[in-house]
Amino acid sequence: MLSKNQIKLIKSLGQKKNRQEEGLFIVEGIKGITEFLKSDYKLNNLWTTKSVFEAPKHLINEISETELNKISSLKNPNTALAVFEIPEPKLTQQNGLVVALDDVRDPGNLGTIIRLCDWYNIKNLVCSVNTVDCYNSKVVQATMGSLTRVNVQYLDLITYIEASKTEVFGTFLSGENIYTTDLPQEGIIVLGNEANGISEAIETMVTRKITIPQFGTSKATESLNVANATAIVLSEFMRRTIEM
Amino acid sequence: MLSKNQIKLIKSLGQKKNRQEEGLFIVEGIKGITEFLKSDYKLNNLWTTKSVFEAPKHLINEISETELNKISSLKNPNTALAVFEIPEPKLTQQNGLVVALDDVRDPGNLGTIIRLCDWYNIKNLVCSVNTVDCYNSKVVQATMGSLTRVNVQYLDLITYIEASKTEVFGTFLSGENIYTTDLPQEGIIVLGNEANGISEAIETMVTRKITIPQFGTSKATESLNVANATAIVLSEFMRRTIEM
Repeated sequence: MLSKNQIKLIKSLGQKKNRQEEGLFIVEGIKGITEFLKSDYKLNNLWTTKSVFEAPKHLINEISETELNKISSLKNPNTALAVFEIPEPKLTQQNGLVVALDDVRDPGNLGTIIRLCDWYNIKNLVCSVNTVDCYNSKVVQATMGSLTRVNVQYLDLITYIEASKTEVFGTFLSGENIYTTDLPQEGIIVLGNEANGISEAIETMVTRKITIPQFGTSKATESLNVANATAIVLSEFMRRTIEM
Repeated sequence: MLSKNQIKLIKSLGQKKNRQEEGLFIVEGIKGITEFLKSDYKLNNLWTTKSVFEAPKHLINEISETELNKISSLKNPNTALAVFEIPEPKLTQQNGLVVALDDVRDPGNLGTIIRLCDWYNIKNLVCSVNTVDCYNSKVVQATMGSLTRVNVQYLDLITYIEASKTEVFGTFLSGENIYTTDLPQEGIIVLGNEANGISEAIETMVTRKITIPQFGTSKATESLNVANATAIVLSEFMRRTIEM
């Protein structure tokens, strides 16, 4: 059921260059695929060892476990692998809160940040062009379906921020205490690279430096993981909307 | 400078069984090793391509890049690899907040949770015996040195919680809204497995079910990554200690 050319195509989608040329990306596992099938994403082809999906029949291909193993990038393939079309980037709406990532490199971090945006109802995530590709299969996997509900765009962050007229928040070691300062429901929240934080060029554009304070007296770790920092920052912005 | 037996020993420490038998674990990179050297951890041996460490001379072995590549588990080895002794587990002090992990499996998650405990001044982390080993090299790497400041213990969680006399908090999809409920500065905070959450046996012992509410109207993702949930929960407990 699986031709050599199909295997070759699927394998090639492990590379960003090929995903962009083909306009296709991979989703693995029943749960993830089901979420994408329910969304606006267009299915290109689906390979599965069990027919448990609601999709056009001509796009569903039943294959053996051995065949699935050949095309899966997972250690333990989970029933199915689907190829979806990469959609055209949507225009970012400028209202409300936007999360901006300045050179986040780890697929797991980007994936869980997309999941956090989904949880906290942040509709728009903008990424610097050197941020890891959201259609990388590890990112797709880590989003647990949230990629279908968050609009991710890659663009020149400097140009984007320059064009915006809102406040620009950035996390730094010394800034306003995030727990006690006022936080509006509009603006851009910038998070930086795993090793280097926010780049100097972007730092100059930040209008409000904020900080997650450390607790205790001993000198603790120098920083938090960027996804965990995003979790705390989004939690703080959104908790302000709750009537106490 | 590197004997075959030394290479064999270092390689063997990739396995939990061997780490436990030898009572040794590996730390890689200048920053991590420096943090462990400053701590109470005892150095067993250090291999480095540059002499930049303050440690007893007889334990420092200069080696070539090629030799470092042979023993490192990293794609891009960073200057040095050290072997430290696994300390005896300390008695967990029962005061204050304790984080308890019920079967957390991902090394990156455990590593960043240890970093969060360090940031939020949580001195004690207790782990169910099936939680990933904190001396796994990926965990050590992800803690960025925080493992030297957080007391991690593996024990039977059920017995531990039974013996405790404090409140037991656990995160569930339906529980008290974490943003609006009172949160004390004493108790055990349980976080669960990546796929299955908190186990049924532990759930029955939870005295206060808490929840991180979702925002927005559309049905979003079903859960948050466990390390991100830990970030938000610890942030909420600790922000209550700040005088507003």
